[in-house]
Amino acid sequence: MDTDSLPLFRPAGPDYRWEGVAHMPYKQDGSAPFKDISRQVLFHAPELGCELRYFEMDAGGYSTLERHEHAHAVIIFRGEGECLVGQEVFRVKAPDLVSIPAWAWHQFRASAQEPMGFLCMVNALRDRPVLPTPDELASLRAVPAIARFLGEKGAP
Amino acid sequence: MDTDSLPLFRPAGPDYRWEGVAHMPYKQDGSAPFKDISRQVLFHAPELGCELRYFEMDAGGYSTLERHEHAHAVIIFRGEGECLVGQEVFRVKAPDLVSIPAWAWHQFRASAQEPMGFLCMVNALRDRPVLPTPDELASLRAVPAIARFLGEKGAP
Repeated sequence: MDTDSLPLFRPAGPDYRWEGVAHMPYKQDGSAPFKDISRQVLFHAPELGCELRYFEMDAGGYSTLERHEHAHAVIIFRGEGECLVGQEVFRVKAPDLVSIPAWAWHQFRASAQEPMGFLCMVNALRDRPVLPTPDELASLRAVPAIARFLGEKGAP
Repeated sequence: MDTDSLPLFRPAGPDYRWEGVAHMPYKQDGSAPFKDISRQVLFHAPELGCELRYFEMDAGGYSTLERHEHAHAVIIFRGEGECLVGQEVFRVKAPDLVSIPAWAWHQFRASAQEPMGFLCMVNALRDRPVLPTPDELASLRAVPAIARFLGEKGAP
């Protein structure tokens, strides 16, 4: 896909989906460290140097707790919830901005009341995310605000 | 500015402005080929390879009619209006997607009723825009839909 082959105009359909954009629900087999989240790649074009994706969690859903070398630039697009970045937890709502630096642990959680969606800009060339080891997770949970954010011990 | 120095969290203030983001109204001296438009650079970080900017026009405002080698990836963020891309005019509203390929003429115009804002993703390394020559403008105006879009002869 490059911008020459992209349609010039792709209208939004109902419920934050777009014409010509694949809607990818994450697989959920019970062991996966995310819940009720979908992904749509809005722009992926080599000459832009980056991609723009739209992630959406159902009410109570959350993204994977992970980190990586590449940075994320995020705009909350609908709804509200919380996010963990590094050692801090923030309450977020549309259209707040969140910057995720290299190697910062991060996770987004929608409120219990409504879906939360965010746009995420990312370099087209990037490394794969890594998940926390049990020791790293224990270190994160040692921070009270993060323990509350992550919820029950069994949850990721 | 890089993502290491950016605050992790920048809350949105009222009226589509953000904490810590400079709001840059364009100068308007009467001869400038744009009207009632402002720019805010939301993310500009070398390691992302790209930038994300938010442009907003007042009701009846419009961006510069221009083209360049670099591509734009656009999401309408608030309001509605029209845009010219190449030889086509589209009615747009939030959150429609618009792709502007290399060297396509483009201009955004807010409706007469309300402001229109859009997010624009762009490569961090890019060429400067060029404006249409009188001959190029005449060629664009030869397309009836573009003549209507551009409005009166005196307007850009």
